[in-house]
Amino acid sequence: MFKRSLSKLRLSPSLALCVPLALVIFATWNIPAFAQDAPALEGAELNKAILDNIWILIAGVLVVFMNAGFGMLEAGFCRQKNAVNILTKNLLVFALATLAYWAIGYGLMYGSGGNGFIGFGNFFLSGLDLTTPIDPAGGNYLTPAVDFFFQAAFAATAATIVSGAVAERIKFIDFVIFSLILTAVVYPISGHWVWGGGMLSNIGFLTTDPENPVGFRDFAGSSLVHSVGGWAALVGAAFLGPRMGKYREDGGAGALPGHNMSIAMLGCLILWIGWFGFNPGSELSASLNVPYIAVTTNLAASAGGVAATATSWAVSGKPDLSMVINGILAGLVGITAGCAGVSPLSAVIIGAIAGVLVVFSVFFFDSIQIDDPVGATSVHLVNGIWGTLAVGLFDKELGLLTGNGATQLIAQLVGVLTIGGWTVLMSVIFWAAIRATLGMRVSPEEEQIGLDISEHGMEAYSGFSKDSGLGATVSSHS
Amino acid sequence: MFKRSLSKLRLSPSLALCVPLALVIFATWNIPAFAQDAPALEGAELNKAILDNIWILIAGVLVVFMNAGFGMLEAGFCRQKNAVNILTKNLLVFALATLAYWAIGYGLMYGSGGNGFIGFGNFFLSGLDLTTPIDPAGGNYLTPAVDFFFQAAFAATAATIVSGAVAERIKFIDFVIFSLILTAVVYPISGHWVWGGGMLSNIGFLTTDPENPVGFRDFAGSSLVHSVGGWAALVGAAFLGPRMGKYREDGGAGALPGHNMSIAMLGCLILWIGWFGFNPGSELSASLNVPYIAVTTNLAASAGGVAATATSWAVSGKPDLSMVINGILAGLVGITAGCAGVSPLSAVIIGAIAGVLVVFSVFFFDSIQIDDPVGATSVHLVNGIWGTLAVGLFDKELGLLTGNGATQLIAQLVGVLTIGGWTVLMSVIFWAAIRATLGMRVSPEEEQIGLDISEHGMEAYSGFSKDSGLGATVSSHS
Amino acid sequence: MFKRSLSKLRLSPSLALCVPLALVIFATWNIPAFAQDAPALEGAELNKAILDNIWILIAGVLVVFMNAGFGMLEAGFCRQKNAVNILTKNLLVFALATLAYWAIGYGLMYGSGGNGFIGFGNFFLSGLDLTTPIDPAGGNYLTPAVDFFFQAAFAATAATIVSGAVAERIKFIDFVIFSLILTAVVYPISGHWVWGGGMLSNIGFLTTDPENPVGFRDFAGSSLVHSVGGWAALVGAAFLGPRMGKYREDGGAGALPGHNMSIAMLGCLILWIGWFGFNPGSELSASLNVPYIAVTTNLAASAGGVAATATSWAVSGKPDLSMVINGILAGLVGITAGCAGVSPLSAVIIGAIAGVLVVFSVFFFDSIQIDDPVGATSVHLVNGIWGTLAVGLFDKELGLLTGNGATQLIAQLVGVLTIGGWTVLMSVIFWAAIRATLGMRVSPEEEQIGLDISEHGMEAYSGFSKDSGLGATVSSHS
Repeated sequence: MFKRSLSKLRLSPSLALCVPLALVIFATWNIPAFAQDAPALEGAELNKAILDNIWILIAGVLVVFMNAGFGMLEAGFCRQKNAVNILTKNLLVFALATLAYWAIGYGLMYGSGGNGFIGFGNFFLSGLDLTTPIDPAGGNYLTPAVDFFFQAAFAATAATIVSGAVAERIKFIDFVIFSLILTAVVYPISGHWVWGGGMLSNIGFLTTDPENPVGFRDFAGSSLVHSVGGWAALVGAAFLGPRMGKYREDGGAGALPGHNMSIAMLGCLILWIGWFGFNPGSELSASLNVPYIAVTTNLAASAGGVAATATSWAVSGKPDLSMVINGILAGLVGITAGCAGVSPLSAVIIGAIAGVLVVFSVFFFDSIQIDDPVGATSVHLVNGIWGTLAVGLFDKELGLLTGNGATQLIAQLVGVLTIGGWTVLMSVIFWAAIRATLGMRVSPEEEQIGLDISEHGMEAYSGFSKDSGLGATVSSHS
Repeated sequence: MFKRSLSKLRLSPSLALCVPLALVIFATWNIPAFAQDAPALEGAELNKAILDNIWILIAGVLVVFMNAGFGMLEAGFCRQKNAVNILTKNLLVFALATLAYWAIGYGLMYGSGGNGFIGFGNFFLSGLDLTTPIDPAGGNYLTPAVDFFFQAAFAATAATIVSGAVAERIKFIDFVIFSLILTAVVYPISGHWVWGGGMLSNIGFLTTDPENPVGFRDFAGSSLVHSVGGWAALVGAAFLGPRMGKYREDGGAGALPGHNMSIAMLGCLILWIGWFGFNPGSELSASLNVPYIAVTTNLAASAGGVAATATSWAVSGKPDLSMVINGILAGLVGITAGCAGVSPLSAVIIGAIAGVLVVFSVFFFDSIQIDDPVGATSVHLVNGIWGTLAVGLFDKELGLLTGNGATQLIAQLVGVLTIGGWTVLMSVIFWAAIRATLGMRVSPEEEQIGLDISEHGMEAYSGFSKDSGLGATVSSHS
Repeated sequence: MFKRSLSKLRLSPSLALCVPLALVIFATWNIPAFAQDAPALEGAELNKAILDNIWILIAGVLVVFMNAGFGMLEAGFCRQKNAVNILTKNLLVFALATLAYWAIGYGLMYGSGGNGFIGFGNFFLSGLDLTTPIDPAGGNYLTPAVDFFFQAAFAATAATIVSGAVAERIKFIDFVIFSLILTAVVYPISGHWVWGGGMLSNIGFLTTDPENPVGFRDFAGSSLVHSVGGWAALVGAAFLGPRMGKYREDGGAGALPGHNMSIAMLGCLILWIGWFGFNPGSELSASLNVPYIAVTTNLAASAGGVAATATSWAVSGKPDLSMVINGILAGLVGITAGCAGVSPLSAVIIGAIAGVLVVFSVFFFDSIQIDDPVGATSVHLVNGIWGTLAVGLFDKELGLLTGNGATQLIAQLVGVLTIGGWTVLMSVIFWAAIRATLGMRVSPEEEQIGLDISEHGMEAYSGFSKDSGLGATVSSHS
């Protein structure tokens, strides 16, 4: 129902309150204040605990690697004059997210205090015995260390989705601030509602049987990660307005082609293998079900890529590499919520629909002049929603199309609306506050010259001749 | 002797026959039709089963990552005007292979029905309990899910080898069709002969002792994967003819240098680490022998790289990066068949010979005007054969040079010829059929302008100035 | 205290002496000469042994992947005219290191003979049963195969650090020779002092209690790997002198900007995830402590990146991507020695200080005109030392700031000085010998035209127009 609860962990609120003080006085704070009274694991049980921890660590490493995937994908889809900027954002955002989630986010999402709306406690990983399984008696052998590692990588994913949609015209400092807020506060709170055992993990009005609660289901985060990032991206792109030259006066969309398809394709494949940590790792243990999740994930990605290729080929007359890439990613986002509970054939169908959706979604957002340079909204928001609803349609035990009624589908809809409403509300508040105080967009001159020079004082490809956009060739440093 | 058999799995042919119908009617088909009567595993045995499954999943992820390696390598070795095309092929081929192998290929290779020539059954993964170990009593704890995942990644490898050899002049649709055929039919059938327990796993005329059958040995696929891909690539390259400008009228080979050595080198290293899934994962379980396989693999790759560097340095006067790269890959292909059974020193010798072979093979194919832009034939075909024969020479228990007679060497030769003959025959048939119906080669104008513009309507490096080939500079979009 | 000892392995010195002969006569040598008398492991103990071996294998694969990270990082930070050269060095060095460490290095570091200064034996992995755990009774379940695999990857890391600092002006053959010496002799001997149970693992003058020896502590190699590579790099860069055009006559440092920030950023993220093999894998077993090490590693990297960003922003007015990258790497190097023994908060502090240090270190080395194109000395040497000393300050059980006195800090200082003195001495001797015999630096004409053409006869980015450095555009092959 939800990923896990830290309720078995001993709370140490007085310690948590001393954090700011401790930060100043002792560099070595953070030694748990409680005694270890649980019996030590041994034999096969200890082996299982180690196996769980090592597997989730490896899965987490794959998720961390997704930052390289997003970096290459987004940089490749942008123009070379903004490459340093997008690379810097995608690299720094993982560092920022790690620190913000360590200090605050993890505590708001899984902290041992709190209520159905918000978790509270364990800030800075305080009060946790980081190398002892959380709840062996309850079958949760993960240590808080590996749990934090895996969850922090997820939080960073939500933030990095935003960077693509706001690329090529946002001020660098704005993105830094918004990323900190998103990973410290916004993402953890809605995450708490489902994975932290909060209010969406048991939706009261959908059942009268307290023995069988009906909860919103999102196995690996189609909504909690991808649509959260997607909504924040959409609001950001809307606030910013389109890049100069993107839309013609007659309303058509001009081409601002990406500068490096090689690294974009590499990014797609890195994301693909990263998803084999993202989805199978969300089992949160090593079990015989784990490879099954990899199979549905792989089938949906493949179907998404093939469907998007065919769709773009049919619509525009040629197979467009950027649509192959976005189709694969759409399939991956689409299967993320349901990967553990749908059949292989359903996975193919979910992925194929995602691949079609992403192509038309890109056209749609261009038609309403929301400029998203990398298609992040179409991939992560549209297909995050699709994947979440697909659980209510295709889940083997809960889906409408598998003969289990519409209750779960309604629960999914409730979740989509609740999480979407929350993220949009928070995004509007924080983007508006940033815009009012710092300004959100670079000057037209800076946008023209490119953010690499204006924001970072360097260029990405020194020594290469670039096209001036006027048919002439300009020189760069040797 | 062979990788594993699904013979312990219950066949459900009537279900398999209903597949097309089921596809239309129910999205949720694929629930196994049989009861689970095997006792559930527990304790140390369950741990071992999980360990096997998680390890092979991780190994499979490494093999999937090889698609990024092939993509970067092949794109880097081609010209920039064809980069989008080769990237699209290398990305899409994994999606196509996954779907084709899911629908048909896996069933022809490992299906529970069939005979020594071909497997049959379990199409679309039907009739399999995907999360239950295949044969615990027989020591095979892998679930069908992880087995399919791993094997599908192998099938894709065979197809992706082809893309490099036919690059820069083949029609996109042709490659798509051939890849589907190769992964759905050609590769699975010869694979069945060995890894599926088929006719090459027991070669009758080589022994009179039925207790000790002599079979063709190919631990991880020097022949079954690499030479199959290599033969298909060779036939394709021969059918296509050389690229415009490759060979001068006097018979010499001109230079059409690759456009991006950075991503080519990255591709080589990605392939190198991917091989640590490819070879050690072919143990198909987690055991204490697994790291040994990684050691022989690593030594052969290193020896191949050093030998090719020295050879190219001696021959051409300078250490050529593309030869370092191909030498490493040659060493990897060469050790693939024997990695589990040869000594570390033998691995070094096998790899070093592979590194020398690849250099002269590149010269040889150029001398007969077979134009293979990335050297795929020299790496995968020539060294696939070499590696297969090397088992008969160096295997600690079966090799001629280790004092065990020539029987195994003959078996290896039989396998090389049989698999080669099969693949060449099928490749000739299907390439010829494609050429007769769709045409195989783009027009001279399209080849001149590059496949990126002509086939995909986009360019790989927008915003950079490219050389016209006439000493002048041409401009691209800003 | 030290990583492990091979003392339980039976020595076979006569066999080792026959190696050169055996190389010539038998390709199949290397079968262990001793009988296996240890009882076979079974049940949960066998599972633990397999788990340990598979985990360290995977960790080793991550460390091998770091070669791709170093390659992309160093190539990206250099100019395009030297890209092929640096790529070739970074690729070949792993092959060379593997062979050198197999033949000699592993035997000098961990060989079963020898003394406190040097190990001896097991050259070419002789006399080892490669698939049997080294010392099950002592709790070491690693096989010699996996141990060699992991250690060889570490040796290569030390060598690859050098390549960046001497880039863009060293002769290719010189780097090849120095790498072989470093990985075969220099690195293994100082490694033996600590991880091989040698003289620094028990520093006699620091204690009078023989029951509680005080040893130098370097969990994953801040000193043994990174500072060794860093010292060798510093000596090499000093011997070579700066690149043409780097320093103006008035003493200021000119800009020779890197040519590809996209691959540099990719390299940083590959190194980041590679470090999750480097540090957690140095536990040398699968345990519940492993994820903790990943958490401290990740926090330090993040803090390093943020601190370096802030520092460079404050100092130069703009956030410099190369400083974000080097800050992350500095944090990673800084936590490497102490990752298993410091608190998360201490990890953040160690990383943050590393991030500040690296920025000022880059300025410092430029001020004394030591030209290090990629900042390898600032990242690996300066922060290797800082990380080593940080153990004596922050270790939960041994650090000065955690209330455990200064003894360990003194031990760390002894180690830094001993290892630094050894590496500098050896580097001076071997670089001087190379300079005296082969010459160390390419000619000014070769440096001007670039090492790609002069040393390798090829260019990295054929088909792109490059800037001549004079404001004009030059053409390359089509």
